[in-house]
Amino acid sequence: MVDAYTRGVVAEEQMSALAMAIFLRGMDRDEIAGWTRAMIASGERMDFSQLVRSGARSATSDKHSTGGVGDKITLPLAPLVAVYGVAVPQLSGRGLGHTGGTLDKLESIPGWRAALTNAEMMDQLRDVGAVICAAGSGLAPADKKLYALRDVTGTVESIPLIASSIMSKKIAEGTQSLVLDVKVGSGAFMKDLASAHELARTMVDLGTDAGVTTTALLTDMSTPLGLAVGNAVEVQESVDVLAGGGPADVVELTVALAAEMLAASGIPDADPAEALRDGRAMDVWRAMISAQGGDPGAPLPQARESETVTAEADGVLTELDAYKVGLASWRLGAGRARREDPVQAGAGILLHAKPGDAVRAGQPLLTLRTDTPERFARAREALEGAAVVLPSAPEDRPARGVVLETVR
Amino acid sequence: MVDAYTRGVVAEEQMSALAMAIFLRGMDRDEIAGWTRAMIASGERMDFSQLVRSGARSATSDKHSTGGVGDKITLPLAPLVAVYGVAVPQLSGRGLGHTGGTLDKLESIPGWRAALTNAEMMDQLRDVGAVICAAGSGLAPADKKLYALRDVTGTVESIPLIASSIMSKKIAEGTQSLVLDVKVGSGAFMKDLASAHELARTMVDLGTDAGVTTTALLTDMSTPLGLAVGNAVEVQESVDVLAGGGPADVVELTVALAAEMLAASGIPDADPAEALRDGRAMDVWRAMISAQGGDPGAPLPQARESETVTAEADGVLTELDAYKVGLASWRLGAGRARREDPVQAGAGILLHAKPGDAVRAGQPLLTLRTDTPERFARAREALEGAAVVLPSAPEDRPARGVVLETVR
Repeated sequence: MVDAYTRGVVAEEQMSALAMAIFLRGMDRDEIAGWTRAMIASGERMDFSQLVRSGARSATSDKHSTGGVGDKITLPLAPLVAVYGVAVPQLSGRGLGHTGGTLDKLESIPGWRAALTNAEMMDQLRDVGAVICAAGSGLAPADKKLYALRDVTGTVESIPLIASSIMSKKIAEGTQSLVLDVKVGSGAFMKDLASAHELARTMVDLGTDAGVTTTALLTDMSTPLGLAVGNAVEVQESVDVLAGGGPADVVELTVALAAEMLAASGIPDADPAEALRDGRAMDVWRAMISAQGGDPGAPLPQARESETVTAEADGVLTELDAYKVGLASWRLGAGRARREDPVQAGAGILLHAKPGDAVRAGQPLLTLRTDTPERFARAREALEGAAVVLPSAPEDRPARGVVLETVR
Repeated sequence: MVDAYTRGVVAEEQMSALAMAIFLRGMDRDEIAGWTRAMIASGERMDFSQLVRSGARSATSDKHSTGGVGDKITLPLAPLVAVYGVAVPQLSGRGLGHTGGTLDKLESIPGWRAALTNAEMMDQLRDVGAVICAAGSGLAPADKKLYALRDVTGTVESIPLIASSIMSKKIAEGTQSLVLDVKVGSGAFMKDLASAHELARTMVDLGTDAGVTTTALLTDMSTPLGLAVGNAVEVQESVDVLAGGGPADVVELTVALAAEMLAASGIPDADPAEALRDGRAMDVWRAMISAQGGDPGAPLPQARESETVTAEADGVLTELDAYKVGLASWRLGAGRARREDPVQAGAGILLHAKPGDAVRAGQPLLTLRTDTPERFARAREALEGAAVVLPSAPEDRPARGVVLETVR
């Protein structure tokens, strides 16, 4: 079916009906594995093994996030893991909808370019260790065609289809190990822990069965990651983390994912937090950005206009809804509605408090930024009810870290 | 959704996904009613009320069959009901797959034409009382578009979609009453009584809610109706019934459906069997065929070749599978695989025994007819296992009539 669809023998109408049947009925493990193998077979496979065979790198490891609001983790993570001699190829995408795209974020760095040839990518992996670039069209073309169809037929949010879409590309990329960041909460595909766990389990099984060492972290996406949501503002926050600072949750998740990738690469005793503090990760970051034409020292674009959202009462901020903040950032110009739309490098939202923080009435909670001030009104609409301030923190909700569970 | 689909705003892919969702999840009564209203609203509505208002006809009544093997009932039924002053407009289709088409059958009559204008149809209803002709493209165009899509997406056999497809056209035709012949068994869409009952109930409710007096007969389609399956051979059998003879099951069903239509038209005491015996139905038949250019006295086409299938043992014929006989007749040339294929007027199958009949080894059970003898082999393949001869009739299967149940 996948092969015939890719060749145009099975019509779009027929695949639409099948996608809805899969959406409503699910697939068993064998079906998902066969479907994923067919997606991989629809295109080319990459091979990074020469980097390891030649001794240039000790291993290859890859990270994939299911997508969230303020999720800039790829930016500090790839150079951080490369510090330890591991090759980290991060084939990334652009944003669509309320979650941002890694390439959109990096393109706010003057001169940086996302498109590399396979040879350029291989050279950079050998010389720098980390590369974040656009995925070529040769990997799993069936997935590209099917994703466009799922988008218009209401069949995106299906665990078998999400899992096979992600894993077909990751397996075709030919990495030795893969760490999955499966987001849970309002800003993620998966709204609850049970469905996130099922998605993680499905993907870990697919990777393992295909010979890729695969683990998954289930991580919180009920509120945005860090204190910045947008493009340039997320690059700035990533640079803060690479400089040994940055918000605690971003640091926690970056280090946790790096530790998993390093353990899967045979370096279980590495202390990635140290490489953030001592500047080694920053060195790789600068080399990585420079190798793709970017100026790591250049000032980042700033939005022309800003407005503030303030707390309405004294108390404790108990919720700051990830989806609503993501939607508002999108409407401010950080995201795109159609694939061909441009994004604003400077647009986005800065957070001045996180859930659990005490706030006072009138204190700024969010700063909204855009080049086009007519966008403020619809962004504020999106933010209605996003921040909840209660007189005191509910006792039944204990503070928790970003990483909720690990699936191996 | 239906309106947007008809206008091309909703894409084929999107309707395909929705059709599969309806196929798998069903629809409740309100949803089916709304869907059917939208299908009706996609096209024109006909109005036969002037025939009644002018006094030319006492009522209008219509019959629809869900399709079976050897189902030629429309041919004797329409003229039979017209005998009593009722207008019987039968907008019919061509065959596709293993069930034959009423228009294909009538086109074996030399000169007869299926295409009439609305004005010609109205004139014939006024003057003759009965008309069997091709449905125009103006009635429920959404259904036509959707049916083609269901055909390629595996979503044909869905009760809500079958019911709304049939009833949207029948309600748009504007008849006062409608009798549905819902087939049950191997040769029908509905293989068991429970699903046939559900389909009948759904359609009767839709008709009643739309102001059309609607009843349904559930009738046996485990074995072919009558002793002839094909085109010209079914016309011949219909003429036999109109001449007061013909197989008992065809007569039984024709009279039962006529009685329902006449009761719904305010003539509950009519005795339609009498109008078959005394030649009044035959008179209307001849007028109806002549009005559409046909010669009711002309010899019917005969197939050039024939072969016989014989009984393999002495005993009782306990089964003669409708689907397999229909498939064999299709392969002999009586049906078409693609909409644009021609059919052979003379092709088909004659039955020499029916379930319950005693047979002797070597006795002819079926005569296969075709103009193209290379078709015999595949027709015989289709007939493998179609006829079951046991030493004696099973005691747990009592003889039953064609009409299994009535739904009002």
